[in-house]
Parts: sequence; C-alpha cells; structure tokens
Amino acid sequence: MGRLKVIISYDGTLFSGYQVQPGERTVQAEIERVLAIMHKEEKVKVTASGRTDARVHATGQTLHFDTPLAIPADKYRKALNVQLPRDIRVMSVEEVEHDFHARYSVTGKRYRYIWSCEPIQNPFRRHYTVETNGVKPDVVAMQKAAQAIIGTHDFSCFCASNTSVQDKVRTVTSLQFEWHGEELHMVIEGSGFLYNMVRIIAGTLWEVGIDRRTIENIALVVASEDRDKAGKTAPPQGLYLEKVFY
Amino acid sequence: MGRLKVIISYDGTLFSGYQVQPGERTVQAEIERVLAIMHKEEKVKVTASGRTDARVHATGQTLHFDTPLAIPADKYRKALNVQLPRDIRVMSVEEVEHDFHARYSVTGKRYRYIWSCEPIQNPFRRHYTVETNGVKPDVVAMQKAAQAIIGTHDFSCFCASNTSVQDKVRTVTSLQFEWHGEELHMVIEGSGFLYNMVRIIAGTLWEVGIDRRTIENIALVVASEDRDKAGKTAPPQGLYLEKVFY
Repeated sequence: MGRLKVIISYDGTLFSGYQVQPGERTVQAEIERVLAIMHKEEKVKVTASGRTDARVHATGQTLHFDTPLAIPADKYRKALNVQLPRDIRVMSVEEVEHDFHARYSVTGKRYRYIWSCEPIQNPFRRHYTVETNGVKPDVVAMQKAAQAIIGTHDFSCFCASNTSVQDKVRTVTSLQFEWHGEELHMVIEGSGFLYNMVRIIAGTLWEVGIDRRTIENIALVVASEDRDKAGKTAPPQGLYLEKVFY
Repeated sequence: MGRLKVIISYDGTLFSGYQVQPGERTVQAEIERVLAIMHKEEKVKVTASGRTDARVHATGQTLHFDTPLAIPADKYRKALNVQLPRDIRVMSVEEVEHDFHARYSVTGKRYRYIWSCEPIQNPFRRHYTVETNGVKPDVVAMQKAAQAIIGTHDFSCFCASNTSVQDKVRTVTSLQFEWHGEELHMVIEGSGFLYNMVRIIAGTLWEVGIDRRTIENIALVVASEDRDKAGKTAPPQGLYLEKVFY
C-alpha cells in the first residue's frame, strides 16, 4: 500500500464545490468514482487540503490517498486523466511517506482572486473572473489597506459566521495586487484560511479601491473581530486555490 | 428608420451556431429575441456577415439591422447587453448608411485558430482551444507550407463537400502562425472563406506540422481541387471569427 500526493487543477464552474454532497456533482465524487473503477469497485478514500465552494476554481488543489496498485507515478497520472472529466486534470502524482497528510501536513496556502475591469464584459472570462463593469479601482489604496491584514491576527472579521472553528487566529504572510492587462489579481498567502476568508478580504479591499471605505478602516475591522464590520463576500468565480505548501 | 452596424463577441460553447434553427439555442435567436423586446414584440430582422458553426467563437462578428428607435449608439449597445445572455456581448454599435450590408459589403475577414500544446490539458481552456496532448508541431514547416495557400485559388480542396456554392475561387491575403506561450495561433485573412475552409486548412497544415504530410504536398492539394486530398476538418472550439472588413 503506497501513499500518493496528487495535485489537481479544476474549473469549478460546473461543480457544487470540492466535497462530496449527495445528489450533487463534486470534484471529490468524480475522483473517487474514477479511483473505484481503477480499484475494481473498492472505495478509495481521498483526502484534500481543504474544501472549495461551488464555482471556485483550483490550479493547485492537493490530495492524498492510499493505493495498493503498483503503477509508476506518471502512469498513474495519465490513467486518472483518461477517465476523469475534462474539467478536472491531474497535474502531478508523487509517492510520499505514510505520514504525509494532505490536510494536516499543510504549512500554508496561496489563493488568487481575479477581477476583470474591461469596459465591456468579456464573454470568454465570465466564469473565470468577477466583472466590475469597467470600474478600475485604486490599487495603491487597496495595497496600502492590505498592510493591516498581513501578519498574525484573530480573523473573525473575515470568517463566514456559520462556522464551527474555534481558533480564528491565522497568519497572512503576503497579500499583493497585480495588474495582468485589464484584469486585477489579488494574490494572498498564509498559514491557513478561515471559511470564506479570501472572498471576504477581496470584497472588503474592493470597497477601499472604489472609495467606499478608507484605508484606515481596515485595521479597525480586523481589531473588531466582527464579521459585520467587514465588506461583502466577493463572488466565487473569481477565486482560485493556487498552491498548497507542505 | 436608421441602420445600425453592430460588432459582437460570443463564446460559442453553448450555442448550436450563429444562425436560427428551430428548437436550438443560437446567437441570432438570442439577439432577435432581445430586439423584439426592445421593439414591443415587432420582429427585427438581423443580418450577419456570415454563419458560424456550433461551438465556434467570435470576437468580431458583425451584424446590421434597421431600427425605428432613436437611441444614441452607445446607449443602444448598453440596452442590448443588459438583456443579452452573458455569453454574447455587444462590443460596439454604430449608425451607418442605408447601403451598408453586413454580408454583401464584406471585403474581407480574419479568423484565428488556436491549439493548446501544454503537456497536460488545461481545464480552463478546454472549450477555447484544441488540445494536442502535448504535441508541439514544426511551425516552421507549417509556415512554409502555408505559402501555397496564400493567393487567389480555387479552394474546392478546402471546402466541405456539402455546399451549394458554385464559385470556389477566393483570395487568402495572409496566413501566419504565432506562439502565445504554449498556445499556437493560426491567423488567416482573406477576401472570403468557403464552408469549413479555415478548419480544413488548420487540419491540413497541422498534418504538415506533425510530419504526416510534406510541405510540397500542399501545392498539390490546392491544385487538385479535391476535398479528399486535404486533411481532416479541425474541431470547432479552436476557431474564432475575429474581424470582418468592409
């Protein structure tokens, strides 16, 4: 029995999120379905670094599972891709030690959030960015405001209220804005993220960018530990889980 | 009654092509549906530069129609976009003379064909490129072979056999290959194109690129005026109608 670490990329548009839900099309269910075929209908339990919500994308979601099949890693990757639907692709398969755990061994994650600021919405990007109807925010202000988020804080203000997690202290190690043509990217790295944390940060810093909230306000929001003081949760289709660090 | 020239962009993935077909979702039907709403259920006839097939995209399809509504051009554009589905966007609306005709006034067209040569298929590009399973063709050979296509020829060899068009002489004014990262673009301009012409040219030059056909063979294919001598019709999702010249 070997343990495999698997990095996958998926277009979240047609999924009800990563995690199995009865009656819904999910990324996990598709992978477990293909693994069951490869293992003669034996169920293989797959563990991911964490969930992603409906319509959220991933370019570097990471999984592990145990398999008795003695297939070389790269052939394993190809065998999975042959059977998986085209909106999920296995980017790499690697044999790892038995103490590797896709969720518990995580030391950090990187997410990307993309706004499309083209004056006319681009039909080819509608599922992959959040459109701003041509509004171009003040990115210098957003970047300044982000300084109040970088560091170790209780991030209750940026956590969806319907979570059971007790300890809401996390460390954001970097938060950068980048223009790629007319698309604005927010790239955020940290030790871990609370439920909806990246989308609430994106929605709150966006309000700074369009002058609905001051730069100074962000430190107060963080200190408040109050979800209601932060901005709206930005839509899911702008979000990408880009890399999981171990 | 004013005549409007309208440039639209559409993601062809979820359309059964441009032209109205009973019971099918088409670009023309969506536009005529919205115009009927704007004109109090009066039917407005829309004329396009030409059809595009199911799954084929456009970034510069051009239309005309006559309208009694005295709405400034840019407001007209916005009014259409508010009601159109998100996979069609109106890029521009312009008032033109009554003798402008979206189809008969065409002096040329530019198409783009895109192959994705990434070693692992990119799930985000699956509807927007044709994947080559990591094969990188010999583009120098493809570009040399293209020289036999540029110019004025009877292009029967590159025309789907089920067409009723009699005169198959057309002029290809340019045919260029360009790498954009790991995506290969073929950009072709000409006076006009026969049914499936760009896709058959793409499929035939691809065979040169992967050494299944010689550079010299292309001149023979053109001279043969025989569809069976050319290569396969390349898949629709790689094709974009990029610009119509008047």
